[in-house]
Amino acid sequence: MSNERSNTMTMMRPESNNRTLAVVLLSGGLDSATTLAIAKNQGFACHALSFDYEQRHRLEIEAARRIAKSIGVEEHLIAKIDLRVFGQSALTADIDVPKNRSHADIGEGIPATYVPARNTIFLSFALAYAETIGAEDIFMGVNAIDYSGYPDCRPEFIESYQNMAALATKAGVEGWQKLRIHTPLIKLSKAEIIQRGTKLGVDYASTLSCYDPTLDGKACGQCDSCLLRKKGFREANISDPSAYINGER
Amino acid sequence: MSNERSNTMTMMRPESNNRTLAVVLLSGGLDSATTLAIAKNQGFACHALSFDYEQRHRLEIEAARRIAKSIGVEEHLIAKIDLRVFGQSALTADIDVPKNRSHADIGEGIPATYVPARNTIFLSFALAYAETIGAEDIFMGVNAIDYSGYPDCRPEFIESYQNMAALATKAGVEGWQKLRIHTPLIKLSKAEIIQRGTKLGVDYASTLSCYDPTLDGKACGQCDSCLLRKKGFREANISDPSAYINGER
Repeated sequence: MSNERSNTMTMMRPESNNRTLAVVLLSGGLDSATTLAIAKNQGFACHALSFDYEQRHRLEIEAARRIAKSIGVEEHLIAKIDLRVFGQSALTADIDVPKNRSHADIGEGIPATYVPARNTIFLSFALAYAETIGAEDIFMGVNAIDYSGYPDCRPEFIESYQNMAALATKAGVEGWQKLRIHTPLIKLSKAEIIQRGTKLGVDYASTLSCYDPTLDGKACGQCDSCLLRKKGFREANISDPSAYINGER
Repeated sequence: MSNERSNTMTMMRPESNNRTLAVVLLSGGLDSATTLAIAKNQGFACHALSFDYEQRHRLEIEAARRIAKSIGVEEHLIAKIDLRVFGQSALTADIDVPKNRSHADIGEGIPATYVPARNTIFLSFALAYAETIGAEDIFMGVNAIDYSGYPDCRPEFIESYQNMAALATKAGVEGWQKLRIHTPLIKLSKAEIIQRGTKLGVDYASTLSCYDPTLDGKACGQCDSCLLRKKGFREANISDPSAYINGER
């Protein structure tokens, strides 16, 4: 593993030991861990990017560190950004995280945990990182099936972002870079994601999905994200290694 | 002036005292100051957004504060983000700012002061801010004439960004928000920008264009940005109120 930065961005398509570079957005959750495992399995030399955005569930950064280490990356950057400046989401502001909603409700509408333009901001940093290291590939674990109703998880958003990104960068202008945003989970159910990741050896005990964990990292078991996760493990017929507050599996 | 936040984002098109809200990206330079004056002159209730991105020329944040105050805004947010994590630009890393380049050279290629995907990142924060306050209008002082060769200052980039943004937000999904990115300077020469701003009463002494100012805010007079500014004032036949290191006007 190497922490070196490529300084050859304008000269060649960079590779790391003959492997193509990719930036992988890594949140610390189940989906992004699986996405990292998929990118690695496809042969990419992965540069993981996480965000410290003063989120309430900061334990997810620790989870991202564990996952990056266990799956293996070239470099893991944690970009500090202050999203609280925009307030209004239950993930960053002082609003209650919704609990124990029905699965029908989870799919309907846009919940209080939505952070304005979050994926747009995250992808923009991934784009900057990709341009800096000279990567043409960005992996992101968005999912349009069990996607909790976030607008910026939809395939049409991703496609449009990719079109914009091609015009945004030095490398795009110079014509040697053609950015691709890979969303390998976009059409998978949570159960299929878990089955895929389990085959690839993802240690799901390292991941943290909960929007409202305890200080020692136990999942609440009741927020939308916990409910989707538990349903996924149940349907995949795989036991969930998460530590939940009430000791459930 | 009010510092109140609209909390009505999903219910109505918000206005401030019957004026439509706009987010204005404000860097502290000549272009964004003029853009703010234009937005205000068009009747928008302006929310200014600046970035503290650990830039070498942090004095520009002080300039942004002076401009926001002198032109008058509803609110001025300064979002702290760490772009240094991506290194490699003379504006954020330890690379020399190019000096005394010819005007022909300034228009050619992409200079060392280019920060990867910077406008993409800035617009993403503007989008989050617009969504939070319920604004449908973003103003940005990009310029495709004297634009120093940045890829993300081109009209086709802005148009593509606007298409993407329409798909990125809760308000876009719910159909009540149609984001417009206004770039009133995009086809103006620097001289025309200065003439326009002067008519609107912009105090250009408050602005800071220099990429490499002294600690007390004097402009170097030799970087691309200073050269373009001096040329603009000369061609506009208006005296430049900037304080330059060598005392020139």
